[in-house]
Amino acid sequence: MNVTIIGLGLIGGSLGLALRRALPDVLITGWDREGAVAQAALDYGAINRALPTLAEAVAESDVVVLATPVLAVRAIFAAIAPHLPPGVLVTDVASTKADVLAWASALLPASAVFIGGHPMAGSEQHGIASARADLLCGAVYCVIPPPDVPPAALSRLCQLVTAIGARPLLLTPEQHDSCVAAISHLPFLLATALVQLTTSDARWPELSALAASGYRDMTRLASGDPTMHRDICLTNAAAIRPWLRDMARLLDDLADHLDAPGYLEQLFSGAREQRNDWLDERASRASLPGSQPAVVGDAARSDA
Amino acid sequence: MNVTIIGLGLIGGSLGLALRRALPDVLITGWDREGAVAQAALDYGAINRALPTLAEAVAESDVVVLATPVLAVRAIFAAIAPHLPPGVLVTDVASTKADVLAWASALLPASAVFIGGHPMAGSEQHGIASARADLLCGAVYCVIPPPDVPPAALSRLCQLVTAIGARPLLLTPEQHDSCVAAISHLPFLLATALVQLTTSDARWPELSALAASGYRDMTRLASGDPTMHRDICLTNAAAIRPWLRDMARLLDDLADHLDAPGYLEQLFSGAREQRNDWLDERASRASLPGSQPAVVGDAARSDA
Repeated sequence: MNVTIIGLGLIGGSLGLALRRALPDVLITGWDREGAVAQAALDYGAINRALPTLAEAVAESDVVVLATPVLAVRAIFAAIAPHLPPGVLVTDVASTKADVLAWASALLPASAVFIGGHPMAGSEQHGIASARADLLCGAVYCVIPPPDVPPAALSRLCQLVTAIGARPLLLTPEQHDSCVAAISHLPFLLATALVQLTTSDARWPELSALAASGYRDMTRLASGDPTMHRDICLTNAAAIRPWLRDMARLLDDLADHLDAPGYLEQLFSGAREQRNDWLDERASRASLPGSQPAVVGDAARSDA
Repeated sequence: MNVTIIGLGLIGGSLGLALRRALPDVLITGWDREGAVAQAALDYGAINRALPTLAEAVAESDVVVLATPVLAVRAIFAAIAPHLPPGVLVTDVASTKADVLAWASALLPASAVFIGGHPMAGSEQHGIASARADLLCGAVYCVIPPPDVPPAALSRLCQLVTAIGARPLLLTPEQHDSCVAAISHLPFLLATALVQLTTSDARWPELSALAASGYRDMTRLASGDPTMHRDICLTNAAAIRPWLRDMARLLDDLADHLDAPGYLEQLFSGAREQRNDWLDERASRASLPGSQPAVVGDAARSDA
């Protein structure tokens, strides 16, 4: 099997390392807009070969994986479309899915099958130098098929996901984008807003001396790639906006109740309990075998 | 020297372990409202002896450290006041300082010197079982003296702080409370609000399956002790409130600009750069020797 990875940053590079470890017979071709990055991916062993043009990189592929920021996906679809071999499976790892599926439907040839993907793992680090073979190991891997997906193609993608130790989870594009707005995009924006608010204050020289591990961890995501996050906001604004508005209202409500012991106790105890329950569930999920794709809500009915 | 630690949780226990390691000749007496906790502190080696009443625990002390949630400090001041030996140095580790200094001034005898303290280290874990001898090592340790502090008492506290590897930083109560509102209390409230907002949503079953390390880290502080955080809000509401209001406004502003690439790029790049600068400064500060108390702003003029 020939797999082509387009974009050799943190996720593309980690995917290459994981595939080479799990499926040593697969030929992995890499392409990156920066030749030096493609060379580094070769040096790290994340790909078997680098080819200089997108046309060459996809010409003999069975599976093409786009691992670029969301907005780059559209241009790459247009660039690879004329060169895709019939029957190829195209997938991506971008952070939002509704736009990507619409672009795939508009730009890719009917002889190719596109299925969206999004591994729920990452790091505020980016670039091939941060890639790790086990980055996606144990992670939930969202699989977002179009309504008319051929079952064989879906099964093939889920097998690849399972092979690298991740756990496929079938979702509709709307489900996916709405969920990640809450648990991924909102947290990034909170971290960024916290940095912006504190560092732009006249007291920052004093604040910065006192800030400790709580501040460090609550702002970690703000060190993420600005381009990736700009693209996420631009392609998922409608899903993110209500979460930001609700959060703003909740913070105003909290500001109104800072003198109310009962309100504070209930909020703090409840949140602590909910988070600890989630950590427990997460630990027990991680110990389950990941070979069967899970389905959430109506994605099960339409796609599986 | 005799040191008494009142309250043997994460910070009290860690302080005991650190003092015993740094100053093995000091006799450390412990008291906790739960006898089993005092016994555990003895078993862990965090104290040399546990005494059953507050009166006995402070009777022979040179230094008394209160390591309880803020609101408990007031009642303990009242309880120990009649039993404090003349010349004793009383300090605390509570998270807010203006109220504590006012209570000390009102409740403690004139023959005792009170100097507020607040080590900028901790964990969402709590209790004696989480205590570590190195928890405060390298941490900034806020020292908040009253206006008329005797220099010898201030020097004695700074020496103890330095002995356990922490770095004393002199602040006024107002400076302290305003700073920690931004870099400690606001981050806790954001983490808690994020848990509350996501777990109370009808889509939580789906969200919880997708939430990964970003969500886990952005909510870590929400697993903290609800009583401690309730007391923090109740005693620092005036300083926390404007930060919550400003954050709510910033999130609303962000919601208005999710389609504006220039706004997003500037915000995200700027926040990333500021955070990375702070991490660099923090790393270089941590490598400096910590023996001289640093001063921030006008605390230098009034207190040092």
